[in-house]
Amino acid sequence: MNPADLSYIIDTLFLLFAMTLIIFMVPGFAMLEAGIVRTKNVSAVLTINTMIYAVASMAFLLIGYQLAFGTWENDSVSKWAAFLFQMAFVGKTVNIMSGGVSERTRIVPLIFFALMMAGLIYPLVVNWTWGANMLEGSVLDISDMHDLAGSTVIHSTGGWALVAAILIVGPRKGRYVGGKVRVIPASNIPLVTLGALLLWIGWFGFNGGSVGSIASRENADAVALTIMNTNTAGLSGAIAAAALIYSRYRKFDITMILNGALGGLVAITAGADLFNIYTPILIGLIGGALVVFAVPFFDHLRIDDPVGALSVHLVNGIWGTLAVGLFAGDVSFLAQFKGVVVVGIFAFVVSYLTIFIIDKVAKFRADEDEQLEGIDVSECGLEAYPEFKRAF
Amino acid sequence: MNPADLSYIIDTLFLLFAMTLIIFMVPGFAMLEAGIVRTKNVSAVLTINTMIYAVASMAFLLIGYQLAFGTWENDSVSKWAAFLFQMAFVGKTVNIMSGGVSERTRIVPLIFFALMMAGLIYPLVVNWTWGANMLEGSVLDISDMHDLAGSTVIHSTGGWALVAAILIVGPRKGRYVGGKVRVIPASNIPLVTLGALLLWIGWFGFNGGSVGSIASRENADAVALTIMNTNTAGLSGAIAAAALIYSRYRKFDITMILNGALGGLVAITAGADLFNIYTPILIGLIGGALVVFAVPFFDHLRIDDPVGALSVHLVNGIWGTLAVGLFAGDVSFLAQFKGVVVVGIFAFVVSYLTIFIIDKVAKFRADEDEQLEGIDVSECGLEAYPEFKRAF
Amino acid sequence: MNPADLSYIIDTLFLLFAMTLIIFMVPGFAMLEAGIVRTKNVSAVLTINTMIYAVASMAFLLIGYQLAFGTWENDSVSKWAAFLFQMAFVGKTVNIMSGGVSERTRIVPLIFFALMMAGLIYPLVVNWTWGANMLEGSVLDISDMHDLAGSTVIHSTGGWALVAAILIVGPRKGRYVGGKVRVIPASNIPLVTLGALLLWIGWFGFNGGSVGSIASRENADAVALTIMNTNTAGLSGAIAAAALIYSRYRKFDITMILNGALGGLVAITAGADLFNIYTPILIGLIGGALVVFAVPFFDHLRIDDPVGALSVHLVNGIWGTLAVGLFAGDVSFLAQFKGVVVVGIFAFVVSYLTIFIIDKVAKFRADEDEQLEGIDVSECGLEAYPEFKRAF
Repeated sequence: MNPADLSYIIDTLFLLFAMTLIIFMVPGFAMLEAGIVRTKNVSAVLTINTMIYAVASMAFLLIGYQLAFGTWENDSVSKWAAFLFQMAFVGKTVNIMSGGVSERTRIVPLIFFALMMAGLIYPLVVNWTWGANMLEGSVLDISDMHDLAGSTVIHSTGGWALVAAILIVGPRKGRYVGGKVRVIPASNIPLVTLGALLLWIGWFGFNGGSVGSIASRENADAVALTIMNTNTAGLSGAIAAAALIYSRYRKFDITMILNGALGGLVAITAGADLFNIYTPILIGLIGGALVVFAVPFFDHLRIDDPVGALSVHLVNGIWGTLAVGLFAGDVSFLAQFKGVVVVGIFAFVVSYLTIFIIDKVAKFRADEDEQLEGIDVSECGLEAYPEFKRAF
Repeated sequence: MNPADLSYIIDTLFLLFAMTLIIFMVPGFAMLEAGIVRTKNVSAVLTINTMIYAVASMAFLLIGYQLAFGTWENDSVSKWAAFLFQMAFVGKTVNIMSGGVSERTRIVPLIFFALMMAGLIYPLVVNWTWGANMLEGSVLDISDMHDLAGSTVIHSTGGWALVAAILIVGPRKGRYVGGKVRVIPASNIPLVTLGALLLWIGWFGFNGGSVGSIASRENADAVALTIMNTNTAGLSGAIAAAALIYSRYRKFDITMILNGALGGLVAITAGADLFNIYTPILIGLIGGALVVFAVPFFDHLRIDDPVGALSVHLVNGIWGTLAVGLFAGDVSFLAQFKGVVVVGIFAFVVSYLTIFIIDKVAKFRADEDEQLEGIDVSECGLEAYPEFKRAF
Repeated sequence: MNPADLSYIIDTLFLLFAMTLIIFMVPGFAMLEAGIVRTKNVSAVLTINTMIYAVASMAFLLIGYQLAFGTWENDSVSKWAAFLFQMAFVGKTVNIMSGGVSERTRIVPLIFFALMMAGLIYPLVVNWTWGANMLEGSVLDISDMHDLAGSTVIHSTGGWALVAAILIVGPRKGRYVGGKVRVIPASNIPLVTLGALLLWIGWFGFNGGSVGSIASRENADAVALTIMNTNTAGLSGAIAAAALIYSRYRKFDITMILNGALGGLVAITAGADLFNIYTPILIGLIGGALVVFAVPFFDHLRIDDPVGALSVHLVNGIWGTLAVGLFAGDVSFLAQFKGVVVVGIFAFVVSYLTIFIIDKVAKFRADEDEQLEGIDVSECGLEAYPEFKRAF
């Protein structure tokens, strides 16, 4: 077997392994969101997650992938494995957005948005960063930004789309009443935990696979270090959130601890390959802390985000990208900052316009009485737990 | 390292990876079925799924594997990995059957059937198709059928066994009353979704691993293409089911969408290695559509199948096998058709006889009052959710 | 590519794969325990499982790993992958202990114990068995014990810590009243099943990865055989438990069947690499049977262990380690016995002292009224299923 073939084979197996781990994020997001929303909106959330995977992946297959990379060809690894690995990412940007407008959004407009995000918006961001780079040489060229697995490309992009969506769709009925924030508790904590832990495992594939190759001693080290650092930041994100919450309330709020872990994971995503084994502890601690402070902050602004997606994905997507500029020797902070700004403006503006137009054609927001009864009945024609008697 | 050793090592790792993914189908089937049945029958379904894995795998270890392949020896990959990969399949044929007679079946006779299916019936089908082929040269030789990972060998076999079982066991009490079909809603939609998505992931191992080797550039491409095509058919199956259901009822029935995805996955299983990247879209679309039409059709025939297993596995097992004959250049449609018929007749007749005889010894059908109270109490002596108050 | 590099690459990929499977045991333990405890204690159990993973892994990164192995360096595989694989084990010892004192324990002292176990107690046990061996040449040297993946090192260690904890913390309020054992049924059987099946899958990584290398024909066979034997013992553990329970009560108690499977898996963990394919059937059958007899035995002793952790992990940890001495030709029974005793005395005594001291500082046991209301409210400030009406 010649060395080129061997590395082709090993890296194909490696990318298929990484891809599979990422696909576990599909049930991961689905369970996390199904556990956080009220029982009357659970089926809708699950339907949305399933349809996002189906529609976004299909749009990426038919249009987005070529727009992002300009070609299907690939020398170093099976082109089909390369596609699958990239395809596994695409639904995540829509998941971030759809999760944050849960409990008040209709399904058809979300499907339209998934088509646009996966077929056009996200592929353009990938084109400029990891792909063919149509902006090369222009003043907007952001290809110097180091973003290993998408703190900006995935998480901020999805986060900015969510900001746009919340501005257009508005908060859930009854969430902000008489100047007060009404707490709406998660309906199923085991599902929240299961979902967050599946996401955590998926992250090993997300970040580890983004190294691109395992087929040399150096790359094997880089992949293993990346996965280790990814995990470390998740650990410290959870610890920071737990410590802050407990020191303030003397209670361990598990949803906040899990979101802290996810915040750490988002934050390390831009630079997990660059750090020694201790820096990720710091990045994750700050990431977890940011979640704890950001969640009430967004509520203070009357930005209603049931799953904390902005705190986890947008805030930490930005933090993680900038952290690479702060802590990694060879990376320019300015390049990181420019990447954050260019992608942020583009993702927000284009998502806003897209959602605005879709909203004119197929209203995003469910009626107040549909929200009261639950989106499950109006959108899915069924209940998530029809046999369980409701306590309220 | 010499090339033969190297390929042996890489393929052993590859088959262990594929096997592990398939084992995720054990919780996959268990959660899917536990979510679909009523709360009073959930523990029984989970017990049945656990016992099927235990008993069927053990029977295959002790008897079935040698009956199917004639030898444990293997040159190209560790013989233990080859066994594990094949063993991971065997319970599925019984899962398909047991799922479709849920909510009215006792556990002991199902265990007997699992023994027979995994020790004798399924190994014979494998012998004729992927194995030692005792029918070689005879008029019944069906080894020309191309069935990569078992649209016929697994899914139709299990499906025909289910037809036999339903004919003997009959419908659930109260399902068809006064000429009407009573709708019995799924009790836990998150579990249904989790289960279906775990099955989806398991399919990557099922079909990808069935290529058999990843240890050459051509094989690496074949494995990656197979997994990609598998996924694509799942996507389009979900999309077809969603589009049909929504266009008719203006509701997104998530259980139908997930079954549509599974239908697409079953349909692509026979030929996922043969197609370009677009054909699977068509095969999956038809697969998803078939599920939507088949579910009410079987109810029209008073064939009571709570989980839609016949629509997913039997109908699409046949469709997928024939589709290879239609769309793959080098494959004879007649060979596909002959394989479908021979396996179908054998699986139905032998399963019918087996179930008929077991039924005389250990009655399959639970009594009407046991069904009313729930199989959990009579068969397991416990309830699945004892603390939750029932709404009805 | 030179052979050393190639084996380095393949084994790094292999260990990352094995590590990932083990991490599925994090949701595995979490779901299993969340399903077994009453609904009022579910969030606490999930919080504890999450915090154990975070705190124990971090302590192992900062202190424990070096204490166990004396160095980060590694020639044959990426040192980061080697760390990750070992790190994936560490939380399990604490999970075993925390699970068995569920429904009556506060979270802060458990976090302190996780720190001590992962930073000091477990690393010392690893040092003497798989690691640097500071006891080499001394009378206490136990490095001749064959314990592939930790029947003693992990499962007995955690089990002895649990005995110590139960002696100090006491039984749940209302468990033993008036000389009688009150049965407290599991609250969510699907979660129990999901958790047990995820643990089962994780075991493939646990035991298979413990072979250490897949990068030769012999090692590939050893890894595959190890995984096969692991699975076989799980199968026969489930079958033994099912047969015993059914023959006695004519009911299939799924929680006992699953614990039987786990018992078989624990029992095979010491020697899965040494046996032919039939011996694991026997070891697993005995393992499953031991669980069925041990569960009522511990209740008879008024040792309250809600999840059956002692029966699964301690009893079978001992049985599995001794079984290697009985059934594997080259292994000394005396060496196995000595290992069981030395580790047992050390783990029990040091855990007892640790828990005793922590208990003085931060009381382990929740007050009676906190237990009555549920630990979720007092420790987490939320409920696991707030919308579901309780039946009692």
